[in-house]
Amino acid sequence: MTDDSTAPRRPEGLAGAGTLLRLLRDGAPRTRSELSTLTGLARSTVAGRVDALLSAGLVAPSGETASTGGRPPATFAFNPHARIALGADLGATHARLAVTDMAGTVLAQTNADLDIALGPEAVLDWVVDRGHKLLDEADRTAADLLGVGIGLPGPVEHSTGRAVNPPIMPGWDGFDVPEYVRRRFPVPVLVDNDVNIMAVGEHFTAWSDSEHLLFIKAATGIGCGVIAGGRVYRGAQGAAGDMGHIKVSGADEAHCRCGNTGCLEAVASGAAIAANLTEQGIPARGSLDVVELARSGSVPALQGIRQAGRDIGEVLAGAVNFFNPSIIVVGGSLALAGDHLLAGVREVIYQRSLPLATRHLRIAAARTGESGGAIGAGVMVVEHALDPARLDLLLR
Amino acid sequence: MTDDSTAPRRPEGLAGAGTLLRLLRDGAPRTRSELSTLTGLARSTVAGRVDALLSAGLVAPSGETASTGGRPPATFAFNPHARIALGADLGATHARLAVTDMAGTVLAQTNADLDIALGPEAVLDWVVDRGHKLLDEADRTAADLLGVGIGLPGPVEHSTGRAVNPPIMPGWDGFDVPEYVRRRFPVPVLVDNDVNIMAVGEHFTAWSDSEHLLFIKAATGIGCGVIAGGRVYRGAQGAAGDMGHIKVSGADEAHCRCGNTGCLEAVASGAAIAANLTEQGIPARGSLDVVELARSGSVPALQGIRQAGRDIGEVLAGAVNFFNPSIIVVGGSLALAGDHLLAGVREVIYQRSLPLATRHLRIAAARTGESGGAIGAGVMVVEHALDPARLDLLLR
Repeated sequence: MTDDSTAPRRPEGLAGAGTLLRLLRDGAPRTRSELSTLTGLARSTVAGRVDALLSAGLVAPSGETASTGGRPPATFAFNPHARIALGADLGATHARLAVTDMAGTVLAQTNADLDIALGPEAVLDWVVDRGHKLLDEADRTAADLLGVGIGLPGPVEHSTGRAVNPPIMPGWDGFDVPEYVRRRFPVPVLVDNDVNIMAVGEHFTAWSDSEHLLFIKAATGIGCGVIAGGRVYRGAQGAAGDMGHIKVSGADEAHCRCGNTGCLEAVASGAAIAANLTEQGIPARGSLDVVELARSGSVPALQGIRQAGRDIGEVLAGAVNFFNPSIIVVGGSLALAGDHLLAGVREVIYQRSLPLATRHLRIAAARTGESGGAIGAGVMVVEHALDPARLDLLLR
Repeated sequence: MTDDSTAPRRPEGLAGAGTLLRLLRDGAPRTRSELSTLTGLARSTVAGRVDALLSAGLVAPSGETASTGGRPPATFAFNPHARIALGADLGATHARLAVTDMAGTVLAQTNADLDIALGPEAVLDWVVDRGHKLLDEADRTAADLLGVGIGLPGPVEHSTGRAVNPPIMPGWDGFDVPEYVRRRFPVPVLVDNDVNIMAVGEHFTAWSDSEHLLFIKAATGIGCGVIAGGRVYRGAQGAAGDMGHIKVSGADEAHCRCGNTGCLEAVASGAAIAANLTEQGIPARGSLDVVELARSGSVPALQGIRQAGRDIGEVLAGAVNFFNPSIIVVGGSLALAGDHLLAGVREVIYQRSLPLATRHLRIAAARTGESGGAIGAGVMVVEHALDPARLDLLLR
């Protein structure tokens, strides 16, 4: 029973490094002794794990304590600048790309009109080409990259990184996105739908004190990203949060593109409001037109957005009873026309949901703005790399 | 840096024991060498952890390999008989109690008509008195007890074990259930609502291959237990799964006891069906009367149950889009009248939910029967005790 030296040691050898890093990610500097007390790990173990984290650059000596001669530095803190992530938020007609550090801070970003229907090669070539330029701008190299995160405007099988029957993405169905991107960035490539990465970006940036969050994107379509226990909840087929086709009361005559009637998207999406306004003699082609009209004071546009908020609120009221979140964040282009959408959402949720579930429920507007998705894609990469089960890959 | 001998060692010393136990709980016997290969732990580590698990009785030498002289036994398997749990399922007027082993097998059980409105002292005294007798019947002692699990027919704050504004439980509001029970059973006491423990019992007993499960209890009221990632999902205030007051379309005139109109419970609960039958001249007082009528062939009762299934299905269709479960289990007394309830649920879910979310969705009747809640309460205790973060308490 003394075969330690020959047995495979890595998981055992690094046990505890993830615990230390999770603790240090709050940014506060700590001594070895404090780390030992806080984690219960033996001091010799803490010393070894701190050495591994130091040599990987993930923690750095903290400048606050004076040197004690030839001894190793006494306090350490998380070093978010050690590594970086590349995050891409690919919409139907627009793309945004950001290089972030491990704290989600944007080091460089860019955006462009880019039609997802150009197909995966053209779009992903843009991501890789512009990604290399952004690395230069941020004065970093591909060797610093923890990975690439990509959000797509359609259903994604997260485990394989492939789009699954995406309605607006010709050529993407089943395409192996990670394999293609890895030809030029040989790092982990994670793919998710756009609403999930926006939810991650919002949660990480503005609401990380909340374990259970729903992020609503109300734009041309309507989707929801679910954060449960601090992590994206995807469900059995990765379809969790697909709220656009839940039935709304009193909307039986509204026909939806999915083939059903009465779906939320058929009455409350930007496309539905625009169609309704057009019927009333106020031409509008999509959610951005609706927002423009609302901003210029069009009462029918304001009413349309307010009623969309109520309809979204009705569906969310059911989700609140079911899921009991601590916060609902409302984003997407329809949320850009003042608080009308939010007001409608609040009105119905507080009317329809149970007192116990709404007692401490916050309902707020999104805070990350247009970069939220790209930041979230980067955060997804960082969380993946720093997962205790995977951390040894960084500490070799 | 050689202060190992004086530093607190427990968490470090037992790192890996939880991993080994999680692996061994499938019941298959394994050698130390296999355990080392499967976990990546050093063989000396495996040896030490196996010794700790052996002396706690949680694993036992497997009889399948021959003795090799004076050497320690070569293969080991999980020993579900080492410790036991006491589970109580306390309903409005009926209580069930079971002693289970660590595999959820019932060793002894009992039940009684017991009015929850007698108040916490009287009801919990019954649990403790009958619990002691059941331990005798199972030929075990309180020293074998991992803990006591209790399900209550109302909202519970799981972290403190207190009922929160329970509508049908006079005297229970805020009562410290764990503190009271621990006076006579000095072990961990876990409290949850009755639907959550039924969900745990169903999941553990019949559907443990499914990560994401919804369990519906359709009886006098309607509730749902949510299993996400293999664990009970409770949400921010422990109110997750409270589906009885979600709005159903076309039921605006139905007044609910919660003060709203159109709630699911106002049209589809056993109480609502019974009231509707009574109005039609068919006297019925509650869900058991409705089931009795349906079993005797009453067409209005059958229609009422079928329509209740459709209404429950409408609410679940939204939950399916949101939560993307792999299985929905339908239980509660209304499910006891053949497949009428299940048929209504299936009809609407497959009509209303998205193809991606229903492609592999199973919708099935509950399998654990009347003991499901008590078994689930016991399983909750076992899972709590064997949690890797807590396992050291058993290995001292």
